[in-house]
Amino acid sequence: MSKNTKVNAAILIIGNEILSGRTQDTNTGTLANWLNSLGVKVSEVRVVPDEEKIIVDTLNFLKKTYNYVFTTGGIGPTHDDITAQSVSKAFGKKYEINKEAFKILESYYKPGEFNKGRQKMVWMPAEAELIKNPTSGAPGFSVDNVFCLPGVPSILKSMLGGLKNKVVGGKPILSHTISLRTVESEIAHSLSKVQEQNKDVEIGSYPFFHAGKLGVSIVIRSEDQSKIDYCNSQILEFVNEKKIEVVER
Amino acid sequence: MSKNTKVNAAILIIGNEILSGRTQDTNTGTLANWLNSLGVKVSEVRVVPDEEKIIVDTLNFLKKTYNYVFTTGGIGPTHDDITAQSVSKAFGKKYEINKEAFKILESYYKPGEFNKGRQKMVWMPAEAELIKNPTSGAPGFSVDNVFCLPGVPSILKSMLGGLKNKVVGGKPILSHTISLRTVESEIAHSLSKVQEQNKDVEIGSYPFFHAGKLGVSIVIRSEDQSKIDYCNSQILEFVNEKKIEVVER
Repeated sequence: MSKNTKVNAAILIIGNEILSGRTQDTNTGTLANWLNSLGVKVSEVRVVPDEEKIIVDTLNFLKKTYNYVFTTGGIGPTHDDITAQSVSKAFGKKYEINKEAFKILESYYKPGEFNKGRQKMVWMPAEAELIKNPTSGAPGFSVDNVFCLPGVPSILKSMLGGLKNKVVGGKPILSHTISLRTVESEIAHSLSKVQEQNKDVEIGSYPFFHAGKLGVSIVIRSEDQSKIDYCNSQILEFVNEKKIEVVER
Repeated sequence: MSKNTKVNAAILIIGNEILSGRTQDTNTGTLANWLNSLGVKVSEVRVVPDEEKIIVDTLNFLKKTYNYVFTTGGIGPTHDDITAQSVSKAFGKKYEINKEAFKILESYYKPGEFNKGRQKMVWMPAEAELIKNPTSGAPGFSVDNVFCLPGVPSILKSMLGGLKNKVVGGKPILSHTISLRTVESEIAHSLSKVQEQNKDVEIGSYPFFHAGKLGVSIVIRSEDQSKIDYCNSQILEFVNEKKIEVVER
């Protein structure tokens, strides 16, 4: 893949616990920041329940639409962990014991501890490639452009290092933030003109409340630093004209 | 809508800042917990960028698939706030000044402060119903089964009270949690049998790490308390047999 190609990804969060509000997802942020650093832009996130048909249909759509798909959750030993069998169905592959994963877990656990419950975690789509898990043994896996990671945030984080060489991004997405002591409506018109004149740069405006004070952060994102710099100077121009205090630049 | 009908909803998070990893979404949890209490189950969450075509297409799918759709983000005064115009397109309605919203903001701001930037926030789909905003003036709105709320979590929260009468749920979804000092693989087989015998109850298993100790929380969810109680007793039966310590029941 050429370094000039734009590379995108979708994140598929699998788990009733996110939809019920019981658990706060933080894996989206972890994956998005890590993918940005590799030059991969997250274009969509979906959260779906632990239901096979929904997971299979969603996977089939996402894997053909985006360069990469990252799933989180559903690869543990219990009945509600159905990611591996769903990925098998989506790719029309056999759901079977992965011998390499079996060996890893057999030697990870003490003799006699690698019980039937734990053995469920080595059932994967045929020909899956393993994603090593330095934290708790049980590996994730990838099939084609779909990468399956666990839901527990600390374990997911520990597995990203081993994935780096498998994900080929485009140019890293650079970003610059200007924080202003103002409200959005004061700058909306001028900012909109900068966006119109720089259509291939992503300019976002986000109000914030910090230490009892209102402000707006403007975030400029592009693969091209010179375009960011140009937008930055255009923004600072109207900021100076309007005599708005710059908190961070 | 009868109280026996199952009522579901989708949440559509609109915003590049979530996809880039810059901002951690918390609105999903807020909305999911609030909807559960009204007897509405969140069936799907999607996060999409600030791009009109994607928002319109996603809205068109979600609004015909689920009883309710809740959007967050994109209703402020800047160029990247395009939720109102996207909802207008999805419903084939004119995007126009909402007179009631205009009056609210005209009297909210001091004379002369209701400038062009702020006036953008009163442009809405024709015939939109307002969702009052006790925190910062600018209202959200609903069209048919789509409810549009702001992205700022504190403002979103403050607006839910005013929405209660507009959302008609089914039976509230009840839940019970049993926390055990064990690992998932020890209970996977027994728990799976309980799930098989109680197919209409949602049983989830979630490992946790707390105060340096491993554990598993089993969450039983149903609209029917007697079904929850029955599953609970079946689970406690195998937990006792296995001599597993119960942390919370």
